[in-house]
Amino acid sequence: MNKISAVKAFAGEQIQYEHQSDTLNCTMKFSVFLPPQAQQHRVPAVYWLSGLTCTDDNFSTKAGAQRVAAELGIALIIPDTSPRGEDVPDDPDGAYDFGKGAGFYVNATQAPWSRHYQMYDYIVTELRELVERELPLSGERSISGHSMGGHGALVMALRNPGLYRSVSAFAPICHPTESPWGRKAFSGYLGDDKAARTDYDATLLIKERQAAPPLLVDQGTADNFLAEQLGTDALKQACIAAGIDAQVRMQEGYDHSYYFIASFIGEHLRFHAKHLSYFGKK
Amino acid sequence: MNKISAVKAFAGEQIQYEHQSDTLNCTMKFSVFLPPQAQQHRVPAVYWLSGLTCTDDNFSTKAGAQRVAAELGIALIIPDTSPRGEDVPDDPDGAYDFGKGAGFYVNATQAPWSRHYQMYDYIVTELRELVERELPLSGERSISGHSMGGHGALVMALRNPGLYRSVSAFAPICHPTESPWGRKAFSGYLGDDKAARTDYDATLLIKERQAAPPLLVDQGTADNFLAEQLGTDALKQACIAAGIDAQVRMQEGYDHSYYFIASFIGEHLRFHAKHLSYFGKK
Repeated sequence: MNKISAVKAFAGEQIQYEHQSDTLNCTMKFSVFLPPQAQQHRVPAVYWLSGLTCTDDNFSTKAGAQRVAAELGIALIIPDTSPRGEDVPDDPDGAYDFGKGAGFYVNATQAPWSRHYQMYDYIVTELRELVERELPLSGERSISGHSMGGHGALVMALRNPGLYRSVSAFAPICHPTESPWGRKAFSGYLGDDKAARTDYDATLLIKERQAAPPLLVDQGTADNFLAEQLGTDALKQACIAAGIDAQVRMQEGYDHSYYFIASFIGEHLRFHAKHLSYFGKK
Repeated sequence: MNKISAVKAFAGEQIQYEHQSDTLNCTMKFSVFLPPQAQQHRVPAVYWLSGLTCTDDNFSTKAGAQRVAAELGIALIIPDTSPRGEDVPDDPDGAYDFGKGAGFYVNATQAPWSRHYQMYDYIVTELRELVERELPLSGERSISGHSMGGHGALVMALRNPGLYRSVSAFAPICHPTESPWGRKAFSGYLGDDKAARTDYDATLLIKERQAAPPLLVDQGTADNFLAEQLGTDALKQACIAAGIDAQVRMQEGYDHSYYFIASFIGEHLRFHAKHLSYFGKK
């Protein structure tokens, strides 16, 4: 992987890398924040998955997460939201909710998407192995995300017990098989395969598995997408029915924007830090 | 003034307004952060002046200032950096450092700029009177800014004793009459008038007046513009010669970006809070 840029922030380093992804068959960029503690010893990481239309840049510049990550000694790993490049097919109508910027963190099975749109494997395996080999990371990790990325974070944590110590999300698409965004994406990337769809729906995964890692969700009540797209209550009810002690918090008056994320990202990182045992040890 | 948008952030409100400016002869946008305390009583304000190419959006979305402003009970007033609109003349070559996005916080005297480019009066008088009339502000104020905006903040505070309780700046253009950016802007907006140029040069103002309000400057040592454009040492020497107890801090390894601003904006707001007497009173 090649370093594109590195900027000092909160006594740590905000870095953008580029690498050739074998999983996605294209060149990918991603960003990393290394806290100052990483100059002394390996540190745990929180992966951040962004939402529709985003790249690695949005969270890096707008969430203000580096301040608390620097304080806690946690690295931030911030991937892009889809495969990229001229060879990668995009939505024929240029829609914002399918194709580039909208990989939905699934492994596509349908042509022409399946050659590149393998974001699930990319995040869970390829990128993780790459950064844990090349960067001063301890191998302890948690995962978080926003909207489409909140969906991705929940699904990855639920499907891989032990891989992530904890999971959190801001305004996640909790029940994509019942969401217009999710249905469109799953139809395109996965076709009619009902089992595959179930495997990418956090609410259905909780019903099926009756288990989850430590889980925190924040959802704004003034979020324009809440009623139609997000299915927060379905996730909450599934957790209650399964006896899972998840925190699903409705935040009065907050919307779907990065101002909402910035307002609560500190609490999310402190939540993850409690589950990342390297924290405070060295 | 009309509210364009309002978003909840850190229990306060991030708002964008639009209004017709009589000083600038055009329609202007600006942003405001009202801390939660403003729902109960009037609050002091910190004005933020942005740098070249910026609008009110950059500081609003990238600096992470709302968190500490909400904690301290300080409003943030965030103007645009130049007059705007189709009627407003721009640099004929589309340069980033003159014309729109580059008003340099002066009152232009030269045609065709003088009709609209009156940013000094706009910030010091028109916008201040407008927001203090329309918003729950106590009338106690400080001022800060970045690069071109750091220059603006220093000049406004130095020329108006008592108007701003304190002033701070990130990587300000400290000595614009000796900076290529400043010389180009002053030639265009002010022509050959040497006295006018002196009145917009913080280093020369300190030499002339031998006084300053409480003053804090942070400057990154890895800032690409430091050697050629910023004149930090000239400002520091002028303060020392005048016996002014300014803090001019060199921050090792930081660059000119918003990552630098985000890293230290909390300290700047706490510095201003010490000089804003409403803080903590009600």
